Amino acid sequence: MPIIHVEMYAGRTADQKRALVKALTDAFVTTAGGSPQSVQVVLRDVEKSDWATGGMLGSDKT
Amino acid sequence: MPIIHVEMYAGRTADQKRALVKALTDAFVTTAGGSPQSVQVVLRDVEKSDWATGGMLGSDKT
Amino acid sequence: MPIIHVEMYAGRTADQKRALVKALTDAFVTTAGGSPQSVQVVLRDVEKSDWATGGMLGSDKT
Amino acid sequence: MPIIHVEMYAGRTADQKRALVKALTDAFVTTAGGSPQSVQVVLRDVEKSDWATGGMLGSDKT
Amino acid sequence: MPIIHVEMYAGRTADQKRALVKALTDAFVTTAGGSPQSVQVVLRDVEKSDWATGGMLGSDKT
Amino acid sequence: MPIIHVEMYAGRTADQKRALVKALTDAFVTTAGGSPQSVQVVLRDVEKSDWATGGMLGSDKT
Repeated sequence: MPIIHVEMYAGRTADQKRALVKALTDAFVTTAGGSPQSVQVVLRDVEKSDWATGGMLGSDKT
Repeated sequence: MPIIHVEMYAGRTADQKRALVKALTDAFVTTAGGSPQSVQVVLRDVEKSDWATGGMLGSDKT
Repeated sequence: MPIIHVEMYAGRTADQKRALVKALTDAFVTTAGGSPQSVQVVLRDVEKSDWATGGMLGSDKT
Repeated sequence: MPIIHVEMYAGRTADQKRALVKALTDAFVTTAGGSPQSVQVVLRDVEKSDWATGGMLGSDKT
Repeated sequence: MPIIHVEMYAGRTADQKRALVKALTDAFVTTAGGSPQSVQVVLRDVEKSDWATGGMLGSDKT
Repeated sequence: MPIIHVEMYAGRTADQKRALVKALTDAFVTTAGGSPQSVQVVLRDVEKSDWATGGMLGSDKT
């Protein structure tokens, strides 16, 4: 039932995503309980041109 | 004013999305009240390579 | 697998929420496919003091 | 630490997004406090074919 | 139509929220266009015990 | 910069949340890279009366 949403810069490989969802699911089950099968993880790649910190887009930082 | 967000696997046709937003809006108004015009529905297609259950990406399931 | 998030003004009764999640799930399955058991609906009650349209909080409208 | 998510119709230029994230960050800091550097803004472009009001997709409105 | 979600530490006063939603709405309209009436802002207060950076809850920081 | 949102049934203790955010942050950094300090985790407790699977609220399941 738990739902984990991840927003991160685009660019991770398929293998990194594969390892990420596995590790997040394990992290949840180990610390908060429940079964792995009940955990959903939804990833969202965000372009640097759509993400700002300090009022400046990531795509404008050097 | 109500906002309904839907995350689902990519692949629905335009006609399915058209029917979906209509049906969700009707479902809300009929059961929770308000006017259809106040209801917003925002869809998000998620690739199977970005969605995991049980720690495994949908794209890795057979 | 589909996830439906609903944000609405607080104040619906338990019976309205019960009917709402049933109706939304049926609406999804009928138009977009899948099994009811795969559909998750997560409700969030929002106070009028936390929701604005036109730059004005709902709690400030008469 | 504050996180601001914006969903809007696709089509804004890079310059509009640049100005938008700056203006939102300033708006937050001026009224709610904190430092600009702590504010994150994440934009999401939504196609008209994924956004409905009144049960009708934006792409079906004339 | 634009939807702005804000997550921030709990503790802002009603007046701060009132000013915040007004300022965010103005910021959006001025830079990205549209009418103020079309802009929705939804606030969410998050307790320090539900927000972590660097793997440490805000409630554990001194 | 990465943002991790977790929705789960209410009821975890402070110690479980403390361990959860630490484990999720480590899981992210180990598999997807970046520094722990850049990772934010936001938890949301959801009551069983606000969460449905198969069209039935968690609070109605026995």
